[in-house]
Amino acid sequence: MIEDRHITLAHGNGGRRMRELIDEVFAYHLANAALDVCVDAVPLALAPDMIPFMTTDAFTVQPLEFPGGDIGTLAVNGTVNDLAVSGATARFLTLNAIIEEGLERDCLDRIIRSLGNAARAAGVQVIAGDTKVVPRGQGGGLYLATTGVGWRAQDCSLSMSQIRSGDVILVSGPVGDHGVAVLLARQEFELKGDVSSDCAPVTNLTSPLAAMAGVRFMRDPTRGGIATVAHEIARATSMTVRLDEAALPVRPAVRSVCRILGYDPYYLACEGRVAAVVAPENAEEILHIWRALPEGEEARIIGVVNSGNARVVLTTEIGGERILGELEDDPLPRIC
Amino acid sequence: MIEDRHITLAHGNGGRRMRELIDEVFAYHLANAALDVCVDAVPLALAPDMIPFMTTDAFTVQPLEFPGGDIGTLAVNGTVNDLAVSGATARFLTLNAIIEEGLERDCLDRIIRSLGNAARAAGVQVIAGDTKVVPRGQGGGLYLATTGVGWRAQDCSLSMSQIRSGDVILVSGPVGDHGVAVLLARQEFELKGDVSSDCAPVTNLTSPLAAMAGVRFMRDPTRGGIATVAHEIARATSMTVRLDEAALPVRPAVRSVCRILGYDPYYLACEGRVAAVVAPENAEEILHIWRALPEGEEARIIGVVNSGNARVVLTTEIGGERILGELEDDPLPRIC
Repeated sequence: MIEDRHITLAHGNGGRRMRELIDEVFAYHLANAALDVCVDAVPLALAPDMIPFMTTDAFTVQPLEFPGGDIGTLAVNGTVNDLAVSGATARFLTLNAIIEEGLERDCLDRIIRSLGNAARAAGVQVIAGDTKVVPRGQGGGLYLATTGVGWRAQDCSLSMSQIRSGDVILVSGPVGDHGVAVLLARQEFELKGDVSSDCAPVTNLTSPLAAMAGVRFMRDPTRGGIATVAHEIARATSMTVRLDEAALPVRPAVRSVCRILGYDPYYLACEGRVAAVVAPENAEEILHIWRALPEGEEARIIGVVNSGNARVVLTTEIGGERILGELEDDPLPRIC
Repeated sequence: MIEDRHITLAHGNGGRRMRELIDEVFAYHLANAALDVCVDAVPLALAPDMIPFMTTDAFTVQPLEFPGGDIGTLAVNGTVNDLAVSGATARFLTLNAIIEEGLERDCLDRIIRSLGNAARAAGVQVIAGDTKVVPRGQGGGLYLATTGVGWRAQDCSLSMSQIRSGDVILVSGPVGDHGVAVLLARQEFELKGDVSSDCAPVTNLTSPLAAMAGVRFMRDPTRGGIATVAHEIARATSMTVRLDEAALPVRPAVRSVCRILGYDPYYLACEGRVAAVVAPENAEEILHIWRALPEGEEARIIGVVNSGNARVVLTTEIGGERILGELEDDPLPRIC
């Protein structure tokens, strides 16, 4: 008897095959004390005296697997990191999987296993989920959506509204690794390179800063890259964000790929970096904290926020100035 | 100048066009005091002394719009109802939208408007969201995923484990309306019928029962229909669920369509019904409560749970017995 190792529409119908898929793949890899696949909704065990926080993200990256991660690690870390940069600690995730008919079951199994490992590494439990199967030619193999709940201390006041003229901008490591790793994994161009995604939880970077004096705001530069974070700050504060090209860390391999293909690395996604806006007098202390961590070794001060027009200016390495415009056409679709 | 009224990949890139789409469609229709489209995560204002509950669901229905609802109303009510049947009151939703390149912007606008209206009608606020755009031919126009948070009273103990031999099963109204309404809207068959989806919040039906003595368990018979709920009960309790065909409410138009196409209405999805398992001595009181509500006028006692083998038996109208098997192949994919 030939066993079919592909996902069929019947895996999404609510009946026997769906139950088996959930038991054998999802419940198997995501197992934890709080996951009960037979209930409609689950209780949330929250911490007293902390403020619960919530966030959500969908993931449509192509290809599903790439050096340094896959859509599963991305779905965990993307949501964990949105809570982390808000000063919150992620504790619970829900997971939606929209699976395309014909996806290899082994591929689904690898991705959900890796999602389970990423959840354990980030300290979160997957407590609820849902799967749907869409017909062949109406999906991208697998789309995921995760929603995260965590909590933050009462005394944390991180917010763009805290940003003051003269504040400096730090980044925890090189930018653009994730974007270029995914781009190379697509093999659309005759390019090979040794670039891995930076996909990782940023909690170790954010938690020491969450309630620290002088830390105004943090964000992870994902879709749209560090340039888009700079634009969001400029728009929200009506101030000028000035980035220093000489200080901005970009790996040589990332820079080469960008030069060949005409991409600007400042618009490419990271999935394990933090940009922080801090008071100038606290910048060195924060750099010191970050550089003591493996994930923050290459942290740098990369720019400054000053009163002026709402715009983003790049001071180039030869001393000139270039306006970094708002991202218009998509340089690189389906990066996350 | 010709304005393009379709969604492009640039609407998902994190830049200007995405920001405009979020402002003009999502933030516009979903606006509420708790929605801030510029933050990574949002605080949850929970009720003290209540237990927070969470659930999640993805929606891939085809067509996106059908008589009685659309994918937007479904995405609200599906998640609100999973909390409601758990005895919880939904308060907050997060929304993920995976949009296919080429979707008409007016269609997206109608659906998100209708989603906003459904949220207000159900008493929930959309507090966070994310949009992604996938290339033409890799989506179904629009896929949505919603995650809901609500709370339930400490003294509510609804659970399948509460079910006892001799308990009776109630349903709040006719089954299969949603499945047949979507089926007819596809126009794959030369059939016309006047069937609307029952898509609606079930909170008015569930909240009077949530902490009532004798109410063991509730579930909304969505994917897989009332037969699948019966199977879930039989499997969890290792008891025999006996459904009474003469008592099971099915609209004549739904019955006709099923007869012509060879579907069994007991496996077709509802999106606004509740099945409740209750102690026999409380059944009449609960029927009385339900029938006083517009959404419960056609409530009936439809079956009984008894010790025996884990199986589902249908007592037919002519007095015979038929085993209702577990759903195998998908009778009707992408119904929700």
